[in-house]
Amino acid sequence: MRALCVAECQLTLRQDMPVPVPGAGEVLIRPLLAGVCNTDLELAAGYYGYQGIPGHEFVGTVVEGPAAWRGKRVVGEINIACEKCDLCLAGVPSQCRDRRTLGIRDYAGVFADYFVLPLRNLVEVPETLTDEQAVFTEPLAAACQVLEMAHVRPSDRVVLIGAGKLGMLTAQALRLSGAALTVVVRHDHQARLLAGWGIPTARIEELPLRQADTVVDCTGNESGFAAAMSLLRPRGTLVLKSTFHGRPQVDLSSLVVQEFTVIGSRCGPFDAALRLLTANLVEVEPLIHGRFSLEESVAAVEYSARPGTLKVLLTFDLP
Amino acid sequence: MRALCVAECQLTLRQDMPVPVPGAGEVLIRPLLAGVCNTDLELAAGYYGYQGIPGHEFVGTVVEGPAAWRGKRVVGEINIACEKCDLCLAGVPSQCRDRRTLGIRDYAGVFADYFVLPLRNLVEVPETLTDEQAVFTEPLAAACQVLEMAHVRPSDRVVLIGAGKLGMLTAQALRLSGAALTVVVRHDHQARLLAGWGIPTARIEELPLRQADTVVDCTGNESGFAAAMSLLRPRGTLVLKSTFHGRPQVDLSSLVVQEFTVIGSRCGPFDAALRLLTANLVEVEPLIHGRFSLEESVAAVEYSARPGTLKVLLTFDLP
Repeated sequence: MRALCVAECQLTLRQDMPVPVPGAGEVLIRPLLAGVCNTDLELAAGYYGYQGIPGHEFVGTVVEGPAAWRGKRVVGEINIACEKCDLCLAGVPSQCRDRRTLGIRDYAGVFADYFVLPLRNLVEVPETLTDEQAVFTEPLAAACQVLEMAHVRPSDRVVLIGAGKLGMLTAQALRLSGAALTVVVRHDHQARLLAGWGIPTARIEELPLRQADTVVDCTGNESGFAAAMSLLRPRGTLVLKSTFHGRPQVDLSSLVVQEFTVIGSRCGPFDAALRLLTANLVEVEPLIHGRFSLEESVAAVEYSARPGTLKVLLTFDLP
Repeated sequence: MRALCVAECQLTLRQDMPVPVPGAGEVLIRPLLAGVCNTDLELAAGYYGYQGIPGHEFVGTVVEGPAAWRGKRVVGEINIACEKCDLCLAGVPSQCRDRRTLGIRDYAGVFADYFVLPLRNLVEVPETLTDEQAVFTEPLAAACQVLEMAHVRPSDRVVLIGAGKLGMLTAQALRLSGAALTVVVRHDHQARLLAGWGIPTARIEELPLRQADTVVDCTGNESGFAAAMSLLRPRGTLVLKSTFHGRPQVDLSSLVVQEFTVIGSRCGPFDAALRLLTANLVEVEPLIHGRFSLEESVAAVEYSARPGTLKVLLTFDLP
């Protein structure tokens, strides 16, 4: 089968990869659409030291597995949990101590003609959702995780920094809380998109310092984090939505003196994401900035890395 | 009057300072005992750019003020709040946007024969408390603030790092939660003191990684913070109890991926501290490592700065 592969910081489309054989509890899936995430760009650049097939955002069809599931259209949780450790037993499999992660750690990803995933990771996609909507389930779940980890109140003043792929989904999820949300933008096209959802935008220098109850940082860089801290009121909450390169310098004294709460957030609830998509409460089509076939997947990842690019999708028609 | 003064990174005992005149709402207080805090050491070293009289931990007697208060033995909250800003109106005067802080910011401190404080900051000391106990009210309140900001459950595994002046009080406050507390120590004398309260201790390298539900960092340094992060389980909570010099490098990606919550904590509830002292649930006498008169206050601060020194008290007998 065909598969995009990462090896030694090189992306290559290989034509000769074996179709994976499902192990115990696993099913074989054929992707319908896959999304390129910033994590894929980092994997391609050699972060995490991952070697293999990347890709973890998908909607696909079960082609091999229990009869009740065959032919079903599914999305899937990306953490393959051990089901034995204290965190699995505590009901937090996404933080499993021995987890593998689809297309990220020790588990081949979805940028291929076929891939496997444990049956227990799958969620059936409601009929009314398009493939284009369903492929956003995973990143929208990650956006919802902000609200899972932090209590955003309807009366809160909330600022989001980093209006990229994940930021645009997170902004829409935050908007639904009723909170007074402002999104920091750098480009007019970001502002126009957000305006379409009724979300006010501002340049960072236009915002008052020390006023926001909650700031969500989707930038993943040191200066974004520092800006986020500066906008927060004393006792405010800063939610981090993106990983960082290296170890940024942080004004921890300010964190202590102003009694901030800083909360990390990672993978989120698929069911909630599917409910929001099904109810058309989150709009994803305007976020699609490109469609490439698997044959063009090296170019797709390169295109996705261009500044300002939102979601790039891969399609999987046989060549 | 006599007063210890900080000016241009120099500590001087001056004999010729005017006795302060209480303004509207303020009372004049004569200290009975005062404590030297790490913040005083930082002020003396020129951090914060404070010029004037340091000192904010005290028990004293009201000598000028409303008749009902004259002669009363008091302790006092250190934040002089504006009572007008949003945080004051929200019931968080310790985070007042226009606050002055006793002996730390824009308000003369207690290392003097007399000082003033707003009447509303005062709390009367219960008769059964000794002066030596009462002078610990402010730092014990700051220790209690850890439990004010973070929910420490009786079933939690808690680790405290940094068994210094404030760490020893915080350890005792945490012990009362019923949680399985371990304190990281470097010296045998710390371990002996903690053993007296039934608190287990360990060297940092003896502790299992990624197991603690809550870690309290009282070190105020980069390596302490990194160690604290390494001990925390996924979704765990890290409470910061000390300010830091400069801007430490922090592994924010770990914070995101493991979904940690990091919480700053500063000044705390005086009433709670007085209740714990009155009930003899927190023991402070063994923390007293030195007593110096105001005349010897320069030496007192120097003594307090020696590694391993716990609380140094100032006495105020007239010369």
